[in-house]
This record gives sequence, structure tokens and C-alpha cells, in this order.
Amino acid sequence: MTAAAARRGRPGYDLESLLRVAVGLFNERGYDGTSMDDLSRRLGISKSAIYHHVRSRDDLLRLALDRALDGLFALAAEVEEHDGGALERLEHLVRGSVLLLVDRLPFVTLLLRVRGNTPAERAALARRREFDGLVAALVAGAVEDGDLRADIDPATAARLLFGMVNSLVEWYRPDGDVRAADLADAVAATAFTGLRVR
Amino acid sequence: MTAAAARRGRPGYDLESLLRVAVGLFNERGYDGTSMDDLSRRLGISKSAIYHHVRSRDDLLRLALDRALDGLFALAAEVEEHDGGALERLEHLVRGSVLLLVDRLPFVTLLLRVRGNTPAERAALARRREFDGLVAALVAGAVEDGDLRADIDPATAARLLFGMVNSLVEWYRPDGDVRAADLADAVAATAFTGLRVR
Repeated sequence: MTAAAARRGRPGYDLESLLRVAVGLFNERGYDGTSMDDLSRRLGISKSAIYHHVRSRDDLLRLALDRALDGLFALAAEVEEHDGGALERLEHLVRGSVLLLVDRLPFVTLLLRVRGNTPAERAALARRREFDGLVAALVAGAVEDGDLRADIDPATAARLLFGMVNSLVEWYRPDGDVRAADLADAVAATAFTGLRVR
Repeated sequence: MTAAAARRGRPGYDLESLLRVAVGLFNERGYDGTSMDDLSRRLGISKSAIYHHVRSRDDLLRLALDRALDGLFALAAEVEEHDGGALERLEHLVRGSVLLLVDRLPFVTLLLRVRGNTPAERAALARRREFDGLVAALVAGAVEDGDLRADIDPATAARLLFGMVNSLVEWYRPDGDVRAADLADAVAATAFTGLRVR
């Protein structure tokens, strides 16, 4: 790289690596607490080099949140095409969500902290509500089929189920010794058959 | 109240009501995003009237976090004195935690969002880790007793269990139609016997 190229400040960041650094900063300091100046300092490139890739900070947030949401909806579409009853599809959705969360941990972490302060955040919350609606419908379907217990309100059951899944962002560390597939098994086993020995 | 008293600005706030307003603001804007000026504006009293009750903003945070933590440790002490095996004590701890969370929702919400940026936050995280250790020990004890399934690592099981409990702060609304006791039953039933019909 020539000195001039270094000054121009584009040491090979593509949109993908830029997005990863931005999401890391958003999770560390909050979106509201992260300026484009902060991002430029962390990346070691100029702000104009960042604007080469995205139009605004909100654009970056939207891309990051969509990375999590697109994954969830791709999974929901997969589940939709799945044969089998509501319970089987729900189990598939739960396991798939755990694997997705592990695979896209910083993006899902960001999504779960969104409070709706910006247009990108409100759009993400609307899509999250849509996904939660799909989960609630599957739970209600499985209760109707007689496969899930009817003494727990389906809306509450759906929330507890994904409350457990989503809580992984608080403690799961990709460099730890719990494998993603084992974690998906543990979540599904706990939620559907319970921790107690039968 | 005389005009002079109104100007002095203490329209009957005691420490308790002051603390509730402060916690509400901390949850809304984050602790870092809430200044004593913000708090003074929200309360409609002067900063010196606030300093009549507490020495600093960090003091307020510490009081608020202790409100949640003291409740958890009182519960743990109660469980300690409980006769019965580890599973029975664990179930008691889970139900009690749900009831405590509902009863002290804003305080527990604040506690669960703490990231360790100030001395009060680091002290709270240390106490949380101690509580998590108690939970993990009870889970391990119940596995040893043969009452909880051994195919899920006890540390993971403990985290999933309290992940589900703690997720309540994300959606539980005290003015909704789910009663606290029903919620405690739903959490215990889901975690220990599972959602699936046997």
C-alpha cells in the first residue's frame, strides 16, 4: 500500500468486516452512545471511508438488525414448509433459533437490546413482534393438537420458551466449552420434557 | 404549603418515593444517560433536596440494586433453612424468584441490565455471581440426588432455568392479566416437568 493510499484510509475493510466492528461497538456502548467518530477511531479509517459503504449510522444499525431478523425469518419459512404437526415444527424452530443465535451472536444480542428509539429500531421491533406471533401460533396449535399442556396459557408458554432461548445472549460465550448443538438439545429438552427425571 | 416551602422544593418526597422515580429513569434512559439534573427535573424538586436524602447518584444506584439483591439473598436464606432435598429447595427458589421479580420489577430490571461500569455496578455483579453460584450448587445437588436429569450439564441447566425466570423483565406487565402466582407455577412447571404432554 502506498503512503497516499494509507492516508486515504481504506486498509481493506469491506462492508462485512465494517459491520462486525460496528455491531461490537454498539453492543459495548449502546447505539445511542456510539458516534461515527467513535467508529472511525475504532476502525482506524476516516469517516468518509465509512460513508463509502453506508449512508448513515442508522443504515449500519438497520443492516445489523436485519442480519439477525433475516435469519429468524428464513428459519420460520423453513419451518413453514416442514411436514409434521405444530409441536414438531415448534421444536425445529426452537433448535434452529439456538443455532442461529450462536452463529450470529453479536447481531442477535443487538436485536434483543433494541428499545425502539430510532426508525431502524422500530422497524426491527415490528419484525420481532411478527416472529413472536409465529411462535405463539405454533404453541397454540400444539396445545390444540393435545401435544402441549393446556394448563399454561399459550402466550405465556411462548414467552417463557423464547425467554429461555434469548437468555443465551447473556451468558453464552462462543469460545467456551459448550457446543452449539448440545446447547440446542439442552434447551429443547428443558423446555419440552423438563429438567426433572421422570 | 407556603410559597417559601414550595420554592425550597420538598413536596413530600421520602427516600422510598425518590428511589422509585430514580429507578424508573435509570431503566428508561440507562444509568449513564441519567444525570442528577434529569432526576431533579423529573421529580420537580431541587438537586439539594435530593442530596438531603442521598450523597450521590451512585448511592441511589446502590440502594436500588440492593433492593433487588437483598430480596434474592433473603430468599436464598429462607431456602437454606428449608428441609427437603436439593430439588425441593431449588423449586422453592425458582418460585420465590418469580414472585420477587414481579414484586420488585423495576429494581430487578435495573439489576439485570448492569454491565459493571461503576463501583456500585461491580459490587452488584459480584453479589449476582454469588447468587448464581447458589443456584448452580442446588442444581448440581439435585442431579446427584438423581432428581434432575444428568444429560444436561448442571451449569447450563442452572443458566437456562434462571434465563427463563429473568426473561420475565422483558415482557411481564404488572397491569396485565397474568397473576404472579400463576406465573410462578407456569415457570416451575415448564422448567421441571416440561411443556409437552406426558
